[in-house]
This record gives sequence, structure tokens and C-alpha cells, in this order.
Amino acid sequence: MNRTLGVCYYPEHWPETQWAEDAARMAKLGLTHARIGEFAWSRLEPKRGAYDFDWLKRAIDTLHRAGLKVVLGTPTATPPKWLVDEMPDMLPIGADGMVRKFGSRRHYDFSHEGYLKESKRITLALAKAFGEHPGVCAWQTDNEYDCHNTTLSYSPAARSGFKAWLQRKYQSPDALNRAWGNVFWSMEIGDFDEIELPNLTVTEANPSHVMDFRRFASDMVVRFNKAQADIIRAHSPGRDVIHNFMGRTLAFDHFDVGADLDVSSWDSYPLGFLEDRSDQGDEWKRQFARAGDPDFQAFHHDLYRATSQGRWWVMEQQPGPVNWAPHNPAPRDGMVRLWSWEAFAHGAETVSYFRWRQAPFAQEQMHAGLLRPDSTEAEGFGEAAQVASELAALDAALDALPGKADVAIVMDYPSAWAWEIQPQGREFDYFRLVFDFYRCLRQLGLSVDIIPASAPSLDGYGLVLIPGLFAWSDDLVMAIRDCDGQVLIGPRTGSKTADFAIPASLPPGLPSDILALRVNRIETLRADTPVAVTQDGGFQFWREFLEPGEDAETLLTADDGVPAVVAQGNVTYLGGWPEQALIKSVAGQLAGRAGLVMKNLPDGVRLRRHGHHVFAINYGAETFDLATLGWKGQPLLGDLMLEPSGVAVTSVADAG
Amino acid sequence: MNRTLGVCYYPEHWPETQWAEDAARMAKLGLTHARIGEFAWSRLEPKRGAYDFDWLKRAIDTLHRAGLKVVLGTPTATPPKWLVDEMPDMLPIGADGMVRKFGSRRHYDFSHEGYLKESKRITLALAKAFGEHPGVCAWQTDNEYDCHNTTLSYSPAARSGFKAWLQRKYQSPDALNRAWGNVFWSMEIGDFDEIELPNLTVTEANPSHVMDFRRFASDMVVRFNKAQADIIRAHSPGRDVIHNFMGRTLAFDHFDVGADLDVSSWDSYPLGFLEDRSDQGDEWKRQFARAGDPDFQAFHHDLYRATSQGRWWVMEQQPGPVNWAPHNPAPRDGMVRLWSWEAFAHGAETVSYFRWRQAPFAQEQMHAGLLRPDSTEAEGFGEAAQVASELAALDAALDALPGKADVAIVMDYPSAWAWEIQPQGREFDYFRLVFDFYRCLRQLGLSVDIIPASAPSLDGYGLVLIPGLFAWSDDLVMAIRDCDGQVLIGPRTGSKTADFAIPASLPPGLPSDILALRVNRIETLRADTPVAVTQDGGFQFWREFLEPGEDAETLLTADDGVPAVVAQGNVTYLGGWPEQALIKSVAGQLAGRAGLVMKNLPDGVRLRRHGHHVFAINYGAETFDLATLGWKGQPLLGDLMLEPSGVAVTSVADAG
Amino acid sequence: MNRTLGVCYYPEHWPETQWAEDAARMAKLGLTHARIGEFAWSRLEPKRGAYDFDWLKRAIDTLHRAGLKVVLGTPTATPPKWLVDEMPDMLPIGADGMVRKFGSRRHYDFSHEGYLKESKRITLALAKAFGEHPGVCAWQTDNEYDCHNTTLSYSPAARSGFKAWLQRKYQSPDALNRAWGNVFWSMEIGDFDEIELPNLTVTEANPSHVMDFRRFASDMVVRFNKAQADIIRAHSPGRDVIHNFMGRTLAFDHFDVGADLDVSSWDSYPLGFLEDRSDQGDEWKRQFARAGDPDFQAFHHDLYRATSQGRWWVMEQQPGPVNWAPHNPAPRDGMVRLWSWEAFAHGAETVSYFRWRQAPFAQEQMHAGLLRPDSTEAEGFGEAAQVASELAALDAALDALPGKADVAIVMDYPSAWAWEIQPQGREFDYFRLVFDFYRCLRQLGLSVDIIPASAPSLDGYGLVLIPGLFAWSDDLVMAIRDCDGQVLIGPRTGSKTADFAIPASLPPGLPSDILALRVNRIETLRADTPVAVTQDGGFQFWREFLEPGEDAETLLTADDGVPAVVAQGNVTYLGGWPEQALIKSVAGQLAGRAGLVMKNLPDGVRLRRHGHHVFAINYGAETFDLATLGWKGQPLLGDLMLEPSGVAVTSVADAG
Ligand SMILES: [Zn+2]
Ligand SMILES: [Zn+2]
Ligand SMILES: [Zn+2]
Repeated sequence: MNRTLGVCYYPEHWPETQWAEDAARMAKLGLTHARIGEFAWSRLEPKRGAYDFDWLKRAIDTLHRAGLKVVLGTPTATPPKWLVDEMPDMLPIGADGMVRKFGSRRHYDFSHEGYLKESKRITLALAKAFGEHPGVCAWQTDNEYDCHNTTLSYSPAARSGFKAWLQRKYQSPDALNRAWGNVFWSMEIGDFDEIELPNLTVTEANPSHVMDFRRFASDMVVRFNKAQADIIRAHSPGRDVIHNFMGRTLAFDHFDVGADLDVSSWDSYPLGFLEDRSDQGDEWKRQFARAGDPDFQAFHHDLYRATSQGRWWVMEQQPGPVNWAPHNPAPRDGMVRLWSWEAFAHGAETVSYFRWRQAPFAQEQMHAGLLRPDSTEAEGFGEAAQVASELAALDAALDALPGKADVAIVMDYPSAWAWEIQPQGREFDYFRLVFDFYRCLRQLGLSVDIIPASAPSLDGYGLVLIPGLFAWSDDLVMAIRDCDGQVLIGPRTGSKTADFAIPASLPPGLPSDILALRVNRIETLRADTPVAVTQDGGFQFWREFLEPGEDAETLLTADDGVPAVVAQGNVTYLGGWPEQALIKSVAGQLAGRAGLVMKNLPDGVRLRRHGHHVFAINYGAETFDLATLGWKGQPLLGDLMLEPSGVAVTSVADAG
Repeated sequence: MNRTLGVCYYPEHWPETQWAEDAARMAKLGLTHARIGEFAWSRLEPKRGAYDFDWLKRAIDTLHRAGLKVVLGTPTATPPKWLVDEMPDMLPIGADGMVRKFGSRRHYDFSHEGYLKESKRITLALAKAFGEHPGVCAWQTDNEYDCHNTTLSYSPAARSGFKAWLQRKYQSPDALNRAWGNVFWSMEIGDFDEIELPNLTVTEANPSHVMDFRRFASDMVVRFNKAQADIIRAHSPGRDVIHNFMGRTLAFDHFDVGADLDVSSWDSYPLGFLEDRSDQGDEWKRQFARAGDPDFQAFHHDLYRATSQGRWWVMEQQPGPVNWAPHNPAPRDGMVRLWSWEAFAHGAETVSYFRWRQAPFAQEQMHAGLLRPDSTEAEGFGEAAQVASELAALDAALDALPGKADVAIVMDYPSAWAWEIQPQGREFDYFRLVFDFYRCLRQLGLSVDIIPASAPSLDGYGLVLIPGLFAWSDDLVMAIRDCDGQVLIGPRTGSKTADFAIPASLPPGLPSDILALRVNRIETLRADTPVAVTQDGGFQFWREFLEPGEDAETLLTADDGVPAVVAQGNVTYLGGWPEQALIKSVAGQLAGRAGLVMKNLPDGVRLRRHGHHVFAINYGAETFDLATLGWKGQPLLGDLMLEPSGVAVTSVADAG
Repeated sequence: MNRTLGVCYYPEHWPETQWAEDAARMAKLGLTHARIGEFAWSRLEPKRGAYDFDWLKRAIDTLHRAGLKVVLGTPTATPPKWLVDEMPDMLPIGADGMVRKFGSRRHYDFSHEGYLKESKRITLALAKAFGEHPGVCAWQTDNEYDCHNTTLSYSPAARSGFKAWLQRKYQSPDALNRAWGNVFWSMEIGDFDEIELPNLTVTEANPSHVMDFRRFASDMVVRFNKAQADIIRAHSPGRDVIHNFMGRTLAFDHFDVGADLDVSSWDSYPLGFLEDRSDQGDEWKRQFARAGDPDFQAFHHDLYRATSQGRWWVMEQQPGPVNWAPHNPAPRDGMVRLWSWEAFAHGAETVSYFRWRQAPFAQEQMHAGLLRPDSTEAEGFGEAAQVASELAALDAALDALPGKADVAIVMDYPSAWAWEIQPQGREFDYFRLVFDFYRCLRQLGLSVDIIPASAPSLDGYGLVLIPGLFAWSDDLVMAIRDCDGQVLIGPRTGSKTADFAIPASLPPGLPSDILALRVNRIETLRADTPVAVTQDGGFQFWREFLEPGEDAETLLTADDGVPAVVAQGNVTYLGGWPEQALIKSVAGQLAGRAGLVMKNLPDGVRLRRHGHHVFAINYGAETFDLATLGWKGQPLLGDLMLEPSGVAVTSVADAG
């Protein structure tokens, strides 16, 4: 395999006279890809129909001549002013009922038919113009769907689309009323035209209503993306269709969008994300302020490897301080290199830095690039060069693909919507729950695959985790029955039907031959009132009152006498949100039963198995001796004494 | 007297085939009442004029046949979609100017004439149909007025109603201008048509303006309720008219609404309310997370005993975890029983559990019932059964009525509005102030009556407390002059005229033969800068600079030399918001002077005198020995060793 | 010079029969000025065109007869209801898109042409009627521009005005697109009519766009004020035109408005401002709760002395508790006197108390006056009397003008807008930064002048501070080159061009003969991760990576090896936001080099040099011995043992 590096470039921001020199410097640095064009609509079509693609052709030619492959973005994340003025109702409307205006980006409503048509029109024009250009190797659809919370819009367009979506799904108002339980509080409708959007209600709307709206909104993203992908495929044969997803973004189903892509990619900003979207406390954030969370990137690498059947990139890699988090520190020396290598350790094909040169103007002027605004090399430049040279030496020695991991975790977007709609306790958040499990597996030195809840294969995993799953699919139940490994389920898993109702036989609603268990009652807990289970730890935030059936065995009991962990065969159920120590104890025991090799890693050190090799990386501020994990010999890359920001690679055989 | 138990039931949520079995199980459990129908408008009138009352008749018949008495709710808290679509301007508008949409409940504007008419129409239809049904023993008007902050609406309907209300009150714009002091900031109007609603102003609106709007809004609730009560009385002779109020809800005057009811009732959710609307700190909330605040229920029991002249119920009693607070823990074993008994200890006629069976669908699917969604018995079921059997044994031995309490506290809704409008210090909240006094009296083992500020009788009370009263009524001043007991006034009492101005002679504005005292200045204090008064404690949040007249005596002086407590005869004035210890010290001294018997109770233990008996209940987590209070002999119910969640009853003679 | 006292008076609030007595008491107290009329529009013109100025004439006559000079306010801060109803689009619109309604004050949009015309009409009518009245000595334009955040309005009127403003500035859409960098995110416009206001955008708007909108909005305030000033000057010869500014109000450029005034004044509420707009922590706020921040008043005295070329007043001086802060404590005894003297110590001509008598009605009924509502003397009355008598004794002995201070700090309103638009780190606030420096200078006993960034003279200052300046003016760069004193620059100074872009040669962008230095990178820091520089302290919130040129010397280096303080000749640059100790150490060293005499003052004690005298004042709660500073002899006012709330004045010679 050929692991590659790229960069995001905006020829329209710079004098054309500078392009060739830029391209030459990119190539010399060891970059092979350049993503361009994704915000350039106002330059590609300054007025309706007055296409100006010449400059873009010259830019692609210039990059191509320098040996770079171009990823060409469709510019639909930034419709120009003249277009918005033509149809102002294409603007999204917030949950507060206010129009979200032109003046930044992502100012469109996914459900607006008129804008969908425009999006197809510009995509088609670009695909026809550049689809067979030899310099174009791939396309990026739009940019960062949902960024700035743009999946949900409460517009007339959304209402109209939602009505039609519901009519297709339910066929009759009565069917909808029954499915939603609209008899409660006299919410029944007599006609689909009576459907309202679930915002600005006096108190909470019906969760079934909101859930369907979330499904509809996700489908609108899928539709929007697929419309572009179809056009590109028709006119740009052999090129990959890619979208760049974001971190901790759950508003639409990335598996659904990913199914229409050749390659999933994501935009990895470790320092910004730590500040901006981590549940960890201040001490953790302080500790990793210049390194990023040791598990956040890995989680998304594993996630986006799953969404398009294995192929994935980092489309935007933080190269220095960013501009958008509450605080924007400089990365510790070496971290830009570390982040790049971590992506490859998880199987990335390409890591592309954002951006080539810091723009001195407009919204992102304080966002670092590989170059400073005056074209001198910024701190990240040297680290990218180091990765390029290390890749040249090491790439061929590594396997092409990372291979199957030790453990699988089910990740399910509708579950995220469901518990956002009905947290029941303030702290209940699906991502946080799944990520808590993920982090503990990483602390045990295990490698993880993330898998979807629909029709997954559980074959070959020593351990499968299914926390907080909203509703079972038949396929998943069947897969559990067939699974040879250990399966750890709960809390809250299977607690609803697809209609957002409590299952008739009570949760978790599995056939009794798999798990004979009823959840009789649940409670949510203040952070200061956890329920103790073992010496190590107990349940926080959420706890269930389990009633095991005859075939099930109670493995752990809470201090107040309520069964806490129940098992039947290879299926184990967790009746609460476990504190970290309890996760590690329970999951560790099951992993041990499955014969998985575990390590006890400090907070900043992480391992990742990739084919026949193991990567070790150090987010921490202390040097760590890999020999204490059983590593021996000189690593292919790095040293056994793993310094802060250090990366080491060795063979599985030498990794203890 | 016959103390009874009931339950809230929704026949429209369940197959008709299940109704008879449900009714039989209710009766077997010992329940005698079932409240039904209050959200069923869409089933009672699926389209305009197309009444479908048959199913309701069958439901009432079924319950009646099982021996249950039905409380029939008017369904006006949930107008159906077709009605809202007919007149969308019936929807309320929030203070932020946004329409509060259909999709949950309470989506109507009290001041909308059209909706008032509709509310009367459906009430009349139901009253005619079921008014004389032998199974119907009572009616509930609407449901939980003001729940989800629905008293105030800033709609065109409200503006128009407010204009008319003001015109009736003031007769001329000049009179209004003078009363409000509109010369200040050129706010004068030339015509009632110029009146605006007091929201979205650039900075705070005139407090007199806001105060009149609050009075108007409260009057609209009274009007709405009375319209239904009048219709029911005309068509359902001999049945009680009831409304179910909420906890810590002060947006309308419950005395005014209660005057049009036969019975006040309230919906008691001890765990939800502790999480959701308590001023106590985290440690208190942690300590009582599974028990509820030891004084919150008692306060409302005492309050709603006052609002309809003594007759009151608990219409909805929490039976397990609820779904709407930030955290929703399970009640400690025994608490559902304790809460039920505490209501009877304060004179409740009926305690009705919410709800019979947990609904697996819609907004309240996570709200426990006496039954689980699969009809098995939930935890609360057994506790309700225990109460039923204990009642059977004990009821006849108890007095019919609780009798007069030791102490009276004046509770005045307009005062709550006034200090919400003009807190002057961030922490100043009328409920919190009154409740602070109430809690201290309870900690001293005293029983309390709550009385209104208008025309109360103070006869027979050893001690009367009047904290934070906005404005004097002549009747109350007269009653103080005639009072034989001790009267404790302040802080902030009598500090305004009815027009929301400072009295000409400065607060507290009492005749000098009652209390010769001027408040020269007030200040509000950061929580970290209380003013010390005695070793026990001082003033927090609010402090007054008192100038006692010749006939008044300074009892306590603050450390900085300012008189803190001043007395004249049996009238004592408190010049600040006292910390708990100071309340207990001052109120305790006055209570002692009045010959009241006091106890020193720990945080979780409370007493309540009911006729010739005393109840002891234990919200705490430790067993408490009632003998330490002087209790002797075997209680009628429970033991001297009062366990957590325990209830004991003994005669006054045996209670020390 | 004749230092004078005044008071704010509202004849329209009181019966005419009381006016003469009020005037006599004012004169007897020693007051010489009365400000009146600024909210009285509804009384001056009850209906359109129906002027009623007679009562105002009688009021002015009455005050004049008692020997008082009248400051007459234009009533434009409170347009009456009939006027708003005539043109409702004069109301401002908030950033949230909602109209800010009538019902309080300041309900107008500065950019509304119709209201500007009305404002001129009423000003002209008043100026013609009273411009030459012998009792009128000065005019106040409007009242407290921007109070309640009223500078910015997002109305159609604002949009239309902004378009025209941009068209004048840029002449062509292309020029605007280039200046703003609108190519970024396809924000380019094709016509000025496409310009939108920068609110409610999906994510942040272009900072250049927002910056121009802020400039436009500031210009609208200037235009509004100048229109009144011009009319007054034309019709009221010899009278001063004054506006009363507020504390920590930065939304418009006070230097620009001040240029059109004869006298700047401000409204000084030490206790309210401490609670309401201080960055200090709880302990500081607790400590000074009854005294006010020891530096906040001084800062604004120094600021407003600068905005109108030296002439300034305190137009409203807090006389007791106010009504508008989160907590409103009573001032410690003596503080009203101290605040008055502190104003004179900084060169005030007049200190005017707000207000004469506490109004018992409307919004400010809880705001103290010199009199209580019943006309008895409130606590502030006696302190004002003491100031009057002290002035009588001391005034002549003091110099007329305070003279040049030791140190100058540049204060620049556009910089405040810039960093509000682009803080980059959550805590970055321009006022806070400047005020941090100011406070440290005061702690060192230095007297400070505040100077503007445009065309300032730096002559005669030992030390000049220029922290956080958005963009250089040529004049300021030239002044630095000519400056003999020490110049301390940074952090973030000169980091942008006027177009809000990063300078081509990177910040700080000074000619290399002044300072050869490049800022290669910046980072923002969590409050818990400061960067250590010296033992005393380091950088918080903001840190720069400095690359000094050949001629520059690194004076201090951060613990991580990055240059922290760099100097070239008399110019020193600070590469971060210094903690207090580091400011004192660096600025102290430079002040020492400049030969300035410094003291080490405790938190509550402050000095101010005024001509040939030095004032010492004590905000603290402990007595302070001025002899420890080297004071000797008996002060002209006060004692060497400076008690809490104490004021002392001595000659420079005797001040050590
Ligand atoms: Zn991005
Ligand atoms: Zn309820
Ligand atoms: Zn003011």
C-alpha cells in the first residue's frame, strides 16, 4: 500500500503567480494530494449561469504538472449571495424559529427542493468540466455536513418534506397516531397536513414525533449527498467520491451517507475537539491541552474506517493552533507528526493537512497552516516533512490493511438521537457512553473496530460491546445468537421499539434463549450519588433494576442488593452506566475469557495493532518504557523509551 | 371521616377489553376513586361537533360497577389539532415573542375569548352528558394551571384583554399614569389603546405595569376556571369541583382560584420537586435524593388546605421514578407510603396515585405507575396496598379534621409577583423566604397553618408570621391589632403600596400604635457577605436600616450597630432575611412566649399534629428514637424507634 | 479653579409647590448645579406639536432664583409613546432579530433617519426656548448613550444606513470584497444592495464585515450627538455641551463623541459597577462590596479627562444603594465623600449626585437619593455637605488643573470591538487587558493619563503603554519614534491592518528601526495553564511566539524557551498577557529607568497627583499610615493615619 500525505489548498485566495511555486513546494515536501475548490462557488459562477471555470482548470493543471493529485470539492457548502437572494427560503431556520442568514457558510436547508436542484446543477457542471481531468483523482462532496448544527432546520420546506416522508412511512394518519401514541395528550392528527415540526412546543414534544423528524432530517442529508455522488460517478469514472465528516457529530447517520461514498474521511482537530467537545473534566483538559485527548482521534479513525467499508482518510489534519475553540493552544512539538502516524496506525490511506498557507483575512485568519501568511514555514511544516520521509522508509514494510481488531463496539446514530430526545437523566449522552467503553478498551491495550447496529458481522471478535442501543434489529439479534465471542450488552440497550415505545415484554427485549432478563425499573442519578457495585466502582447517572430469568446468572450485585451484572452463556448484561474502573473490570474479565492480550496503559500511552505490527504512541508528558509492556528489540520506528509525542512501531511478535 | 385512596387512569390508552380487569384490581387494592378523562379531547370530539362520548360512558360505567367513584376531568389542557388550526391565535406567545406551538399540552392562552368559549362548550357537553351519572363523584377542571409556565402569554389576545382590564380598573389614562408613575422616563399614555405588554422592553419595564399585567394574567386563570366550575355546578349537582394545582407554582393566585372550587388538590412529586425546584444546595439534594425534601410536601399540604377553606386532596401522588426532573431516582422503599400518610397527617381527604399503569408510549413513558407497562405490579403498588390496609385499621380512630395549628404563616401570591418583578438582590425570592420560615417552624416540631393576606383570622394562633408581604390590606392590619398571639413581621413586609410605590411614611407602614418603626434604607447582600447579628446567625441577601420609634424596643442589634429586631408589644419586626439559626432563635423565643411546645428535630424527622393525634415521619436515613422527644407507649401506628421511611402516630397526650 | 457640586433633579416628579423648598435646600447644602429635564419629553410635548414648556421654565426660574445653575437635558433618550406609534420602525432590533419595545427607555435606533429628525426638532425647540435663559449654564445631550446595549441595532434602518456607509467607504463592491477577503467562503457581493447585517449567521460572520458594522454603528452615535450639539451651540451661546457617558462602555468611540462636546461627563456608580462589570473574583468583590473597586473610578476619571481635551465632570455620583446590580449594598460610611474627592483629585470640575430625592415610584424606586422619598436626609446628604464645606476651605489651595501624569496608556475603542469580534481565547477582552495594566500602575503609586491611539502626543511621559492595540496609525508610529520615555507595547498590539487582516510582514508590524520583531505564532490558554516566565509570574490567556530581529534584545524568556519580553532601545515588547506580578515587574523596571517615583501600595490605598499636590484615599477596611510612604507633616486634608474611607491631601514635596 501507498500511504500518502496531502494538503488543503485555496488557489482562489492567492495570486495566480504564486500557484506554481506553491505546487512545487508541496511536492518537495512529500505531499501527493491537494484538495481544492470546496468553497469557491462565487468564483466559479459569479452570476447565475455565468460559469468561470478557467481559473480552476489552470489551478488543477498547475498542481497536476507538479505531480500532485487533486481532490476537487463541490462548492455547495457556500452558495453565493445571488443564489440566496433568488430563493431566500433556502436558508435554514433554527429551533428557535429564526432564519439563519447568509454571511458565513452552510446556509442552506437540506430539505429545500430548489437548493437540491441547484446543488445538482453546479455539481453536474463541474463534473462535466473536470470529471475526466487526469489531475483529478477524487471528489469531495460539499464540506462537513452538519458543521454548525446544520442538519436540523425548522423551515416550511422541512415541514413540507417531513409531511411527505411521514405519509410514505405511515400511509394513514391513524397508523401514525397509533405508532406515536398520539392519544396521549390528544395529539392525534386527522390529516398529514396537520403535522407540525417538533420545535417551540409548550413542553416536550412526543419523542416518537421527534425521532421521526430526526430520521427524516438524516435522510435529507443522505439524499443531498447521494445526488452529488451519482452525478460525479456518471461523469468522473474511476475517481473516488469522498466526504469529510467531523468529530463527535451525530445529527445524521454517517453509515447511511458513507454507503454512498467510496471513501469516508474526517477532519481531525485534536486540540480544538478536546476543548470544544470533550466530556472530560478540567484536569484532563489541562493535562492534554497541547496533545489532544488520547482516544478521541482513534475513536473516529475506527469509526470512519467502518462507514465506507474500510477505506478512509483524514481530509483535514490540524497543523498548529486553530481559531474556533474556547482556547487554542499550540500543539506540543511532535504532535502533528504523532497525529499523522496515529491515523496510519488505524488504516488511513491519506492524511491531508489543513491548510497549506494561513489566510491573513476573513473568518479563519487565526487558523495555522503549514506555511505562515508570509509563506515562511510554520511549525507544522517540518513535522509533515518528517512524516513524509518516515513514510518513504517504512511504508512498504507495513501491511496494506489494519485487519480485524480484537474487540467490536456497536455504534448507532439513531440511538444518539433517541437519548438526546429522552435522556431521562441530565448526563445521559450516547456518544459519551460509547466513548467511555472505547476509552477503557484502549487503556487495556486492545484494538477496536466500530460496527453498525444493522446487519453487522460479529465473526472473529473476541468481545463485542453493545451499550445503549435504542432498538434491536432482527439481524443483530441473530448475529448475537451466532456469535462465538463474548457479548457485553447494556445499559439501556434494547429499551425501545423502533416506534420509541417500551417493548411489551420490557427491556432489554431479547429472546430468552439469548438472555432471560427483564429491566423492571430504571432510575437516573445525580453525579454525587453513584450506586456502589464493587470495590472498584459502581454505576453513575443511570441504573436499572434487573430481574434475571431462570437461565441467567447474577455475576455482580450492587451494594443495595439489586443485581448489577447478569450473564447467560457468552452474553453479559450491565445494569447501569459503569464508572471507568467497573468497565475495565467487567470488560477486562470478558476479554480475558476470550483470550485477548491486555496491557495496563497509563493515561497518555496507547497501542494500536495494524496487521502484523503494533504502534505505540505517547500523548503524555512523560517518557514511557515500552519494555515494561514486553516490547523487545529495536522498533522499526522510534525507540523502546517512548518520549512525549513519540511514536514507535514494532512487529506483533516483538510487542509482548 | 373516611380517608380514601385513588388513582389516575386513562381508559383511552388501553384496549377496552382491559378496563374491567383494571377496575377490579383497583378496587381490590383498596382504591375508591379514579380520575379520568382530562386529556381525552381528541377522542371525545375527533372533529368539530362530532362528539363521541360513548366510550367514556362505558369507561365510567365499568369503574362504577367495580365500586369506584369517578373524578371526571375537563379536557381543556389539551385542545385538539383541528381546534388549534381553526383559530391559531389561541396559542400562547412567550415572553420572547415566539408562538408556543401545538405538539405537547397546555397550548392555549387564558385570555383568548375564542378558546374560553370552546372550553365552555366542551365542559357543557360533558357536564350535560355525565353530570348526573351516579359513578361521577367529582370533577377536575382542566389540569395543572400554569404547568410549563403557561399563565403568562404575550399575545395580541392578552394585550387586548389587558387593555380592557386596565380601562375597567383605572377609568382614565391619567389615573393609570399617576398610579404607575409613568411620568418617569416619559412612559405616559394618552389612550388605553397605547398600552403594550411589558415584554421585550429595552430595559426593565415599569414595575407597576408588570404588576398589573401579573394581576390581569392571574384573573384570566380565575375567569377560565370559574367558567367551567359554574357550568359543572349547574349540571352536576352535589359533585365536588376540584382543580389539581402544582408545587411551587406562584404565577396565579391560588386563593382566588380555590375560592371557586369545593376542593383544592395538588400533584405531589417529592423527588422531582427536590431536583427541579428546591433552593437547597447539593448536599441536601444528595441526602434526600430518594426521599424528597422533608418540608416541601408539608408546606403544600398546609397551603392547599387553605385555598378552598379546608377541603383538599392529593390528586397525583408520585408512585416511583418520574421522567421530568434533571435526575429521576427511585424512591427509597417505604417513601410512597410515607408520602401518603403525610398527606393524611395534614388533613387530606384523598390521596390519588399517578398513574395506574405506566404508559409505554409518548412523553411520559418513563414515568412509573402502580403497574408496569406489562401490568405487573410496580414497587409503588405494594406500598399503596399497605396504606389501604392501614387506613382500614386506623382511619376511624383519627379525628375528621386536623384542627387549628400552632402557628400561622401568611402566604400571598401578589407578593411573589412583586419580588419577582423587583428582587433588588439576585437571591430574593418570595417562596424561598416564606419556606425558610416554614422549615424552621417544622424543625421546632410546630404545626403550621398557611393563611391568606386578605381578611385572615389570626385568632387562636400562638404565633403569626408575615414575612415579605408586598402591601398591607386594611383587614390584615386590623387583625394584627386584634391578635392575642405573637406576630412576627418582616423583612420587606408592607414595603409597597398596592400601586407598587414606596409608602409615603416609608415601610413597614403600620400605624404607630401597632409598630412605630421606619425602614430608612435597605441593602441587598452577596451570599458571601452576610451581616452578623447574634452568635447563631445573621441576615443574608437582604438587610434593612431600622429606625424604631419611641414605643418600639430594639431586641437585637447587628454587629455594625444597626437595629436588627425591634418589638412593640406582641408585634416583632425582623430587619433582614434571617439565616436559619436566627429564624429558629427569634421565632422560637416568640413561640415560647406564646406557650407553644417545641422540639428540636433532626433534619429528616418531622412531626404533625392532627386533631388529638401527632404524626411522626422519618425522611432521614437513620432510625430515630421518638422517646427522646418524650413519646411514650406503643404508637397507634409504627414504633417509637422510627425507621427510615417510617411513620408513627400517637395521641397528643403520649407525644410529650 | 472653582470645583463645584451638583445634583440631578426631576421637577416633573414632584408637586410644583415643593420646587422652591427643594431649590433652597440644594443651595444651602452647597450645591451649585442642577441637571434637569432629560427624561421629560412626554411632559414637554404631550402630543405632536403641542409643546408645553411653561412648567420647565418655572422650574428653571425657581432653581435660578435659588442661585443654582441648570444643566438642561435633551429628552431624546425617552421618546414618548405617541411618537413611537407614529413610526414604530424607529425601535431598535436586537441581535436576536426581535424588536426592542417601548416601555422603558433608550428605545430608539441611532440610524433611523426619522428619529434623528425628531431628535433635532425637539432639541431645536428647547434650544430656542431656553438657550439664552440666564439660569441655564450647560446642556446634556440625551442620556447615557449605549446604556442597555443600545448602540447596535439590526433593523432595516440600520441595514440601509450601513449599505450607504459602505458605499461611501469602498465605492465599489469589488473593493469591499477585496478589503474583507470575501472570496473566503464565497461571501462576495455583486452590489451594495446585497449587504446584510452580520447577525444570525449560521456561524461567525466575516470579522471585517462585523468590524465595519461596529464602525458604522459608532458613527451613528457620533452623528446623533453632533446633530444636537450643533443645534445647541447655534442657539445657546456660551453654554457647555455635555454628555454623560457610562462605565466600561465600549460600543461606540467616546473620543469621537467627546470631540463634539465641551465637557465629557460620566455616571459613576462604584458599587453597582463592581458587582455588575468587574472581572475580579468573588473575594475581591466581597472585600470591596461597600467601597467599590479602588481603580475603576480612577480609570474612568482619567479616560473622560481625555475624551474632551481635559474638561470633565461626574454627572451622576452614586449617593447610596442603587437598584440595578445583582446585589446593591449600602456604601460604607464616608465612601460618598471619598468618591467625590477622588473625582476632584483627577481633575473633575463638577461632581453631581444622582439624585436629589429618591422617587417612590417606577423603575428606580429602590435607587437612593440625597433625600429619602419622604424628604428626610438620606445617608449621602451629610457626606455631600461635608464635601461642600471641605471644598470651601481647600479649593483655592489646589491647582486648577491636574497637569500631566507620570504614565500614559493608549485606549482605543476600535480595538475593543476587534477583540470582541475575534477574541481567539475566551478570556480575551480589551478593557480587561488595559485595565490590568492600569491597576498595576496605580498599585505602584503612579498617576496615569489615558490617551487615544490617533495622533497622541507622547511628550513628557516617563512611560507609555500600548497594550492590545488593533492597528497602528501612522501618527502613533511616528510618535513612538519621537518618544523620549519608555514605551511598552503588546501583547497583540499592531496585529491587524485596518481591514482586519494580518499584516503582510506579520505582527507587530513596526518599522525595524523601532522594533525588529516578528510574532510567528500565537496561542490562547486555559486559565489553568499559564506559561511561566519569571518567579513572579507569567503569561495567562494569550501568548506569542516571538522572533526578535538582530537589533532587538530578549530581556525575558519563558520557561519553555520562547522569548517573552524583547526590547530595542526605549521600546519594549511583551509577548503575552502578563499576570499582575509580571506587569508590575516589567512596567516597574521601565518606570524606574524613566526616573518615576514608585510606591508599593496595599490593595485598598491609592494615590493621585494633582498639580502640586498628592491625594491619598483609602478604599480598604484598615487604617493605613501614610508615613510609611514617606509622607510628612500634617496634610491639608485628613491625617497621616488614613482611616477606611479616608482622604488626605498634601503637597508633592511632603509626599515622599
Ligand atoms: Zn474544516
Ligand atoms: Zn401531572
Ligand atoms: Zn443614569
